[in-house]
Amino acid sequence: MAVNLLPPDPAAMLPVAGVTLGFAEAGIRKAGRRDLMLMQFAPGTRVAGVFTQNSFAAAPVLVCREHLRANVAVRAIVVNAGNANCGTGEQGLAAARATCSAAARLVGCDAKAVLPFSTGIILEHLPVNRIEAALPACVKSLAPNHWADAAAAIMTTDTVPKGASTAATIGGKRVHVTGIAKGVGMLQPNMATMLAYVATDAAIAQPLMLRLVKEVADRSFNRVTVDGDTSTNDSFVLIATAQAGNAEITSADHADYVALREAVLKVAIPLAQAIARDGEGATKFITIRVSGAQDDAQAARVAKAIAHSPLVKTAFFASDPNLGRLIMAIGNAGVADLDTSRVSIWLGDVRVLSNGGRDAAYREEDGARVMKPAEIDIHVALGRGSAEQTVWTCDFSYDYVKINAEYRT
Amino acid sequence: MAVNLLPPDPAAMLPVAGVTLGFAEAGIRKAGRRDLMLMQFAPGTRVAGVFTQNSFAAAPVLVCREHLRANVAVRAIVVNAGNANCGTGEQGLAAARATCSAAARLVGCDAKAVLPFSTGIILEHLPVNRIEAALPACVKSLAPNHWADAAAAIMTTDTVPKGASTAATIGGKRVHVTGIAKGVGMLQPNMATMLAYVATDAAIAQPLMLRLVKEVADRSFNRVTVDGDTSTNDSFVLIATAQAGNAEITSADHADYVALREAVLKVAIPLAQAIARDGEGATKFITIRVSGAQDDAQAARVAKAIAHSPLVKTAFFASDPNLGRLIMAIGNAGVADLDTSRVSIWLGDVRVLSNGGRDAAYREEDGARVMKPAEIDIHVALGRGSAEQTVWTCDFSYDYVKINAEYRT
Repeated sequence: MAVNLLPPDPAAMLPVAGVTLGFAEAGIRKAGRRDLMLMQFAPGTRVAGVFTQNSFAAAPVLVCREHLRANVAVRAIVVNAGNANCGTGEQGLAAARATCSAAARLVGCDAKAVLPFSTGIILEHLPVNRIEAALPACVKSLAPNHWADAAAAIMTTDTVPKGASTAATIGGKRVHVTGIAKGVGMLQPNMATMLAYVATDAAIAQPLMLRLVKEVADRSFNRVTVDGDTSTNDSFVLIATAQAGNAEITSADHADYVALREAVLKVAIPLAQAIARDGEGATKFITIRVSGAQDDAQAARVAKAIAHSPLVKTAFFASDPNLGRLIMAIGNAGVADLDTSRVSIWLGDVRVLSNGGRDAAYREEDGARVMKPAEIDIHVALGRGSAEQTVWTCDFSYDYVKINAEYRT
Repeated sequence: MAVNLLPPDPAAMLPVAGVTLGFAEAGIRKAGRRDLMLMQFAPGTRVAGVFTQNSFAAAPVLVCREHLRANVAVRAIVVNAGNANCGTGEQGLAAARATCSAAARLVGCDAKAVLPFSTGIILEHLPVNRIEAALPACVKSLAPNHWADAAAAIMTTDTVPKGASTAATIGGKRVHVTGIAKGVGMLQPNMATMLAYVATDAAIAQPLMLRLVKEVADRSFNRVTVDGDTSTNDSFVLIATAQAGNAEITSADHADYVALREAVLKVAIPLAQAIARDGEGATKFITIRVSGAQDDAQAARVAKAIAHSPLVKTAFFASDPNLGRLIMAIGNAGVADLDTSRVSIWLGDVRVLSNGGRDAAYREEDGARVMKPAEIDIHVALGRGSAEQTVWTCDFSYDYVKINAEYRT
């Protein structure tokens, strides 16, 4: 069902020196599928992450934040699928901590050097004993070339594992960037939560890591939405092992920082797009570009107003150029004093709206033509300024309802 | 498909002295259905309205605002279904004005004394010649007992006409309040737009009319949402003919004002609920009460975050007590510093969440029991203050997608 999305070719997922990955069947929700993943990092690895803004942040998110604040170098992460460990109170926090302790004993580090992640059903207690029982198998399978298997082990309602990889020359050295992600619903980064892990062997100073992870998130995962629902477990973690041999990047103004950011974005953007391509029930991949805004936030707000409208999304599912719905959505974006007479809309190469009214040359057959393909571009020009943002989303189909009405059954 | 909603009994729709209603088949979008409605008011009638906050407010909304600002006593309203006259630029404004002029000639008043309303497809030009051709038939059919017919003539994707009526004694006089509404999607008060008209024969001073219409809207139509999409054409108009013989209400502090507001709410609330009961594809009618908020806006924001979540709505469609989605939605409401450990949730009489975690006594079979009926109550206690708000909505079904993927075909 995913739109133009193939599983990652294991041979194209470049190993990142200092990172090994293992997986196991823990039987957390369903038997007979890999649902536990362990990533181990070499000493000297720097890690930074950004997490859900949902007030009901899950227990593993709370523990991740606590461990990252402790300033202990992260040596491993543990991810389970099938249970989100959210809405589980003190018992949930204890379960997340027990997961870290079990992994720490096996890999030989402090429990605070382990970050826990969970994705799946909310409001049910995590069967932490099953995780503890399966962790030894995870450790046994640790290998640098298990990125594709790791991508599969963290899936929930995902139909396709998601991975991307690139290499770049930074400071005269070959640097590798490889990442995996999951998530297809409850996603303005569902019950399928978004989790993403991107690792590089580049050397970059710890103080710059948080800046880099935020900048990358803002240009990738934060620009994707499936249903506008923000999960309680969203996490994006950037790992840098410093094993590529490049001179450590210590300034965001340095060309090497920019080059590394570009390399990380080359992995993060396709991963983010993969989430929309595999959006629950998706039949279309939609790119919404809003230009002429006064600032980035305004451009993003208009793009997301379109991307979140159930009416826009169902029209795209039907390939029906019912483009008045775009107008409605733009008008609901909450842009103060929007001068609608300055707004123009293009669907692909077809101009639909000019100066706030139906374009005189617009013909419905042209709209229908550009609505048919599986990939559709919308461009809205607001005529207010020079800021521009792009958001990726998918359509809203019968299968979205089916998937979410039947998720637990 | 509507949830526990019957068409208004014509005999129960009390006539309002000073108001007559007519209808006709104008063939605006489809032939063979009544799609044009005219309401005429006696001299001395006061009118006030509230309109969509969408930046792309439709041409008729712009003309309504202009006419109401002109301080000419409103003598008639004209409503067409099938075309929203939105995204139609200057041509659309001219069409709305031409509609008013044609009606004014027929009923003998100034064009500014006519308010125009349109509902239906956006971004297509209004066939104003068909309206002009059908208006004489509207005038011919004007009668005080045509409320139920008028309710049917303004429908788009509505499956049931919506009307309500009550009587009260105010200032020692029998006062009547009767109203009609339409709207089933693009509705956080869709292509089905919300339109509502409530008339009373009470005498109330013009300066109080706007206050009354706002207070009533805030406690009725503004508390309904189907899909979170706010139409370009939403309008709620209150009409007071001053023919009941009560002493004119001139102060909002007077008991008569409160009595009239209660009477108007007795009509407006069931009309608002009727919109959610007939929400596109609805199989459940859901009442969401949020208490313990710091202010009304915060309570409403949390209630609407739940009501807008596609994941919550699909779970209710499935009668699946996947109640973690309620937590997710509350966490996304943007309440600053929400102390989740103070939050409790009840579904009907079943306590689901206590102090931010799954209630120890909660059993899934109890959740499943209260999820089954067509009417479901959710109560969220935030534990922050004493403000409380209630929002009405419906579930999200296959038929919502079907209706909106096929609306124009």
